[in-house]
Amino acid sequence: MKDFDPAATPGYPGAGKKDASTLTERLGSELSELQERLFANGKADPEQSPRVLVVLQGMDTSGKGGIVRHAMGLVDPQGVALKSFKAPSEEERKHHYLWRIRNALPTAGMIGVFDRSHYEDVLVVRVESLVPEAEWSTRYAEINEFEAELVAGGTRLIKCMLNVSFEEQKARLAARLADESKYWKYNPGDVDARSKWPAYMEAYEAALQQCNTAAAPWHVIPADRKWYRNWAVAELLREALTDLAMPWPKADFDVEVERQRVANS
Amino acid sequence: MKDFDPAATPGYPGAGKKDASTLTERLGSELSELQERLFANGKADPEQSPRVLVVLQGMDTSGKGGIVRHAMGLVDPQGVALKSFKAPSEEERKHHYLWRIRNALPTAGMIGVFDRSHYEDVLVVRVESLVPEAEWSTRYAEINEFEAELVAGGTRLIKCMLNVSFEEQKARLAARLADESKYWKYNPGDVDARSKWPAYMEAYEAALQQCNTAAAPWHVIPADRKWYRNWAVAELLREALTDLAMPWPKADFDVEVERQRVANS
Repeated sequence: MKDFDPAATPGYPGAGKKDASTLTERLGSELSELQERLFANGKADPEQSPRVLVVLQGMDTSGKGGIVRHAMGLVDPQGVALKSFKAPSEEERKHHYLWRIRNALPTAGMIGVFDRSHYEDVLVVRVESLVPEAEWSTRYAEINEFEAELVAGGTRLIKCMLNVSFEEQKARLAARLADESKYWKYNPGDVDARSKWPAYMEAYEAALQQCNTAAAPWHVIPADRKWYRNWAVAELLREALTDLAMPWPKADFDVEVERQRVANS
Repeated sequence: MKDFDPAATPGYPGAGKKDASTLTERLGSELSELQERLFANGKADPEQSPRVLVVLQGMDTSGKGGIVRHAMGLVDPQGVALKSFKAPSEEERKHHYLWRIRNALPTAGMIGVFDRSHYEDVLVVRVESLVPEAEWSTRYAEINEFEAELVAGGTRLIKCMLNVSFEEQKARLAARLADESKYWKYNPGDVDARSKWPAYMEAYEAALQQCNTAAAPWHVIPADRKWYRNWAVAELLREALTDLAMPWPKADFDVEVERQRVANS
């Protein structure tokens, strides 16, 4: 983790914050069409159509919610399936940890967004010793296998680790406590997790290293600057969708016949 | 239906189309905060917190999808639960027609959006005689009871009938056939439904008259002008959320203690 600068802005084509809203808006119109192509293909051919899954991981205040609002908010809500993973329910705990993940995978034509994910099962679970090491340590390989299978099945995975600094997290927690309209976002447990920062960084490092596969690489997103963070995830989504190079689906009806029918109707 | 002009713009504060994007954007920032208040209350007190449900009904091309994109797209996707109702599945057909509706109701703090709804069970079902008249004719009273119960349970219902004219529908269907990027939105069945326009209008009239209750009134939205239609639904949502007058939830922790904890962390 030490090799990554949380305040960096790699790949950003602007001159800083002042360009961010223009750049993100421009990305928005590109994304909008790309997402519609994905959605259209999902409708036309659900079996063959690709899916996209954005996985968001990061410490509290790193901006998972902000990305949903400002990056995923750029496209038609109809095409976005958001799933937030909390501490597992009683029902979920009865199953393998990937069970609830599999149940929430995006369907054809959809952009799935996971706010937290199966990585919690090697992050909080590891730091808090919620299962024995013998158990969590086997999960990295299992996750790699699961993700490889997903990708082979036609899902494009965009895994983002939102890298916020220890100092910036403090400022953001303090800001939540300085404004009564932000109290609801504050959770005393966040400070407990903060007190275990080095252990969390170690756990993140392990997840980044052991699960950085060719099929499903990690992107470490510098997250101290919100405007960069939002732009960067939107840009990754744009790249993935562009790369799919989806044509508009062909008509499954006779266009001339239908033009006549409408004209006569 | 004849009393409603599909090209009207009632309540619109601007001077026409040219103001629409500014007005809708302004609505967007208001909606954004209102939706966050709703969401925050849903998190803080799921039992007591209100829910909001927007029901969208209208003939093909009336703009149900456009409203999801341009009106619901104004707020945080995290707070919007969209459900599109298609022809019922085999599983759904085994149950009462309200079963799938109840399963899709918004949870605390959420804005639910129904793209089609239980009204299909007195619209297409009536026009196409999918069940005998003796059956569908009892549904109006049943729907009123269901909706009254919903509202009594803390759900704010916003029922919108998107009123597109026969002529405008023709133009929109023709436009879909004039552009290969729109073929996927075209369905030959739409012309079949169009050929039964008077029967559909009769069915809409019955639904509007018989289910226009004090608890859950109908809004007939003129839908020939997309910019008006989008603004109008966003405005109805703003009014409903404003009317809820939700304060930010109180902290369920000791703010001073937590400020100290963060400062020392």
